Amino acid sequence: MPKYLPILEWGRSYRADAFANDLVAAIIVTIMLIPQSLAYALLAGLPPQIGLYASMLPLVAYALFGTSRTLAVGPVAVLSLMTAAAAGKVAAQGTPEYVAAALLLAFLSGAILVLLGLFRLGFLANFLSHPVISGFITASGLIIAASQLKHLLGVGGGGYNLIEIARSLYSQLGDVNVSTLIIGVTSLAFLFWVRKGLKPLLERLGFESRWAGMVARTGPVAVVIAGIAVVSGFQLDQHGVRIVGTIPVGLPEFALPPMDFDLWQALLGSAVLLSVLGFVESVSVAQTLAAKRRQRIDPDQELIGLGAANLAAGVSSGYPVTGGFARSAVNFDAGAETPAAGALTAIGIGLAALFLTPYLYFLPQAVLAATIIVAVSTLMDFSAIRRAWVYSKHDFAAMSATILATLLVGVELGVTTGVVLSILLHLYNTSRPHFAIVGQVPGTQHFRNIERHDVVTSDCALTIRVDESLYFANAWFLEDTVYGLIAQRPGLQHLVLMCPAVNHIDTSGLESLEAINQRLRDAGVTLHLSEVKGPVMDRLKRTHFLKHLTGQVFLHQYEAMQALDSHCAEQAVDS
Amino acid sequence: MPKYLPILEWGRSYRADAFANDLVAAIIVTIMLIPQSLAYALLAGLPPQIGLYASMLPLVAYALFGTSRTLAVGPVAVLSLMTAAAAGKVAAQGTPEYVAAALLLAFLSGAILVLLGLFRLGFLANFLSHPVISGFITASGLIIAASQLKHLLGVGGGGYNLIEIARSLYSQLGDVNVSTLIIGVTSLAFLFWVRKGLKPLLERLGFESRWAGMVARTGPVAVVIAGIAVVSGFQLDQHGVRIVGTIPVGLPEFALPPMDFDLWQALLGSAVLLSVLGFVESVSVAQTLAAKRRQRIDPDQELIGLGAANLAAGVSSGYPVTGGFARSAVNFDAGAETPAAGALTAIGIGLAALFLTPYLYFLPQAVLAATIIVAVSTLMDFSAIRRAWVYSKHDFAAMSATILATLLVGVELGVTTGVVLSILLHLYNTSRPHFAIVGQVPGTQHFRNIERHDVVTSDCALTIRVDESLYFANAWFLEDTVYGLIAQRPGLQHLVLMCPAVNHIDTSGLESLEAINQRLRDAGVTLHLSEVKGPVMDRLKRTHFLKHLTGQVFLHQYEAMQALDSHCAEQAVDS
Repeated sequence: MPKYLPILEWGRSYRADAFANDLVAAIIVTIMLIPQSLAYALLAGLPPQIGLYASMLPLVAYALFGTSRTLAVGPVAVLSLMTAAAAGKVAAQGTPEYVAAALLLAFLSGAILVLLGLFRLGFLANFLSHPVISGFITASGLIIAASQLKHLLGVGGGGYNLIEIARSLYSQLGDVNVSTLIIGVTSLAFLFWVRKGLKPLLERLGFESRWAGMVARTGPVAVVIAGIAVVSGFQLDQHGVRIVGTIPVGLPEFALPPMDFDLWQALLGSAVLLSVLGFVESVSVAQTLAAKRRQRIDPDQELIGLGAANLAAGVSSGYPVTGGFARSAVNFDAGAETPAAGALTAIGIGLAALFLTPYLYFLPQAVLAATIIVAVSTLMDFSAIRRAWVYSKHDFAAMSATILATLLVGVELGVTTGVVLSILLHLYNTSRPHFAIVGQVPGTQHFRNIERHDVVTSDCALTIRVDESLYFANAWFLEDTVYGLIAQRPGLQHLVLMCPAVNHIDTSGLESLEAINQRLRDAGVTLHLSEVKGPVMDRLKRTHFLKHLTGQVFLHQYEAMQALDSHCAEQAVDS
Repeated sequence: MPKYLPILEWGRSYRADAFANDLVAAIIVTIMLIPQSLAYALLAGLPPQIGLYASMLPLVAYALFGTSRTLAVGPVAVLSLMTAAAAGKVAAQGTPEYVAAALLLAFLSGAILVLLGLFRLGFLANFLSHPVISGFITASGLIIAASQLKHLLGVGGGGYNLIEIARSLYSQLGDVNVSTLIIGVTSLAFLFWVRKGLKPLLERLGFESRWAGMVARTGPVAVVIAGIAVVSGFQLDQHGVRIVGTIPVGLPEFALPPMDFDLWQALLGSAVLLSVLGFVESVSVAQTLAAKRRQRIDPDQELIGLGAANLAAGVSSGYPVTGGFARSAVNFDAGAETPAAGALTAIGIGLAALFLTPYLYFLPQAVLAATIIVAVSTLMDFSAIRRAWVYSKHDFAAMSATILATLLVGVELGVTTGVVLSILLHLYNTSRPHFAIVGQVPGTQHFRNIERHDVVTSDCALTIRVDESLYFANAWFLEDTVYGLIAQRPGLQHLVLMCPAVNHIDTSGLESLEAINQRLRDAGVTLHLSEVKGPVMDRLKRTHFLKHLTGQVFLHQYEAMQALDSHCAEQAVDS
């Protein structure tokens, strides 16, 4: 039981000084989270209070089940965009069905994450390669930024990919509201300045670097307060500036999600994508922060922690949540010591929902849009595209396909394309493995590629180093390569397959080896193996292959060459 | 151009003695192919003449474009079953639409094969692993045999999986026709005896083994003649014995397949499966036979040859074809020297369609069913299941899933399940790679796993051999493993990653290495690499990784240990 409830471990030694540190961190994160949760709810097409609700119970659930000491869970930009895309497929924004769909998405991804955790299937998240994640997040950031332009311009519209958004904006360019535009652009400029210029300024004024960074993170709160003051002071809501309006006072309602089987089926695929992406994002944040303090996180238990958080969101009027990068970094810098900081943050947000919402009535949507744009601008990493191009054309291809599919069609096709393409390219890569003919480096016991090094070879014995596991995707290629090399060398008597890089041999590979052994025997060539790895050898011993093998298995290539050289010399004397 | 027309190569040196040999082989194959083509058409749910048509023009097309000297193309059991399953989804057996669907399947798979060949994508066939193919063929054989029971019993019914077939047979057990049953069971018993007992008998009578084998292969012809004689002699067709009936005399009509876009779309997926399976079956037959005479076949050109054969079937009233094992073996044993034997066989079948069909009127369907059952009984390989179990549980799992899905649901789901599962299991395998801590074998320059060998290690420098390429599926696992090992060894100063088995490092793997390098640096441990392969090193040189690397890259682990041992010794003196 303690295995699934990490709180039993850290809770036992919880002391007052840790509580004090957690409380300070919780206050700072709460201040940061209030405008964020409203903004991300707006991005997800949901009423603002849903953002607050998603920042209460889920945080408590994660504090109970999560393993990261400093991860700050809540609504994040990319999941909000994905929620909008998925819920938009089954209902229209602004309807109760849309809100119910978002809630069900949280519940379903919570259930999926918990199941993956219980079955210890966290490794599945590995199938999202780094270039695919990085490309997906950059492209999502672009779509998110583009989708917020309508709020800066004060027009309507929508769309889930760049083409739809551009078309929708273009058709409404005549309706731009100048007051909204001024508020939006001013907020944007201020927030970018805060991000780039405020921290250095505070440091020059003598603030400690850590505190200067944290003050700079509260920029959005200042903009929110200024925005409310300007709109209510000049009554700009009467002049077409859209405001957040009435947020219901109080805590979320508890209820099970709608038990509509068709709806479950329609949203299941989206919930899978949401959970996997949320998990990958969250775990990489948690691992980065844990490493800084030499703590460790358990990815399988993280699945359960995030799953519990999403289940909690699904029964308390929330929507999908995960660990956010910026927020967790602030939590970490502010000195959070245990997951209790998350539970304290939840109390802070609860107090805000009870007492603060009336003051947010005049908050202009353009200000929230500006905070979203600034937040996602830090997620985009265009230099990764260039790095992938330089390092690996295949990774570049997977990344570009992810970016293009995300931008031009949508987030779900984008991430699916990336995953499928990276798996296919990996299989393609390993289906035509690298083979090297090797020879002895003079004066040593080492054997290297004849094309790269000055080495000694023999006419009577050929050694091929196979640079890949032998499995179904390359079984034919191995046979083809060996027959091709043999055909060019009529005087050959021994062939050694040097296997230090053969990590597995599956049944297809074994059958190919048997075919090679048999055909070489018919051609009068003896087949030997060298440097076969322990686990591979254990497995071969369970078959008849070693009995049928015409030659020997040598522990080291050097022994193989000594044995075969003397054998070849005898043969030469005989003939 | 000659590259795509192998006939230009062998045709130039075609001589009279080769023609004589090809003619003899063609006559024997024709005799064998007449009952086979009728039987397989019956299995596919098509009128018998379609089987003959599929054995004419396609053979000529393969003779022009194929690279195997001895492959005998035509209808085969597994593709006939798959055709029935696919065409049955869009039309009812016995309707013109059903025949049109079968024809379109041939045309579509022909087009797919030619495209794959032109783009040299033959390697895609590798994704069908040996256990999956073997399991699929065994399961298909069981379904085929079960589906023919109705003809032996003289009842109706249908079904594309074991459950459907059993249910359909059970409901009609009361209608069994005794005459049909006697003919069927007698034919079956005779054919099994011919296969097992006739060849040894003929050999004892002094026949040469090769010819005894070939005579034994003509068993079906004898049963066909006997069946016709019995049914026409006793007028058993008046007593409920189902016969082949009128086969239209003449050659096939030429026409393009129906240009119905919806139908194309409905059949495209099935056509993909048909083409890939047909190709895999055919190429393995062709390679086996080619190797016996030290000839080679070109898989990409084989795609074009088989594609041309199927396109020909699609425009000449045929249905999907490929190279058959039994028939090709007879062709080979009978001495066929060039693909011209195939063209001569086509002429033989043409003559049969023109002059022989009236004599086949009384041929009982039960006899054809018996020949099918005996033919597929040789395809089934139950011992392969046991072998897979012993050698690899993963391969056994992929094989069993293929067999169960094929038997219980159908051929298409069966083969898809097998392919997807074997890819997932392969990725799973490589996502948790084997790591070994290695030490020096005393008195040598070799380094082996400390758990398997008596080796010398150092407290100050640890060497980990990574037994897998570093790519997205195992990037996290690598980091986790390294951090875990470091955490247990507080006095450690140097970590060497020994990479003889690292065949690729993709962008995700590179980023993990960078993270490891950085975190080890923070922990005061220097990271070194040894035995990095040439192609991997070339790629690393294009990045900043080698600049950031805290330690060195050693060509051989022995050099690494010499350098680090002296370094560790100095440190020990200093402290």
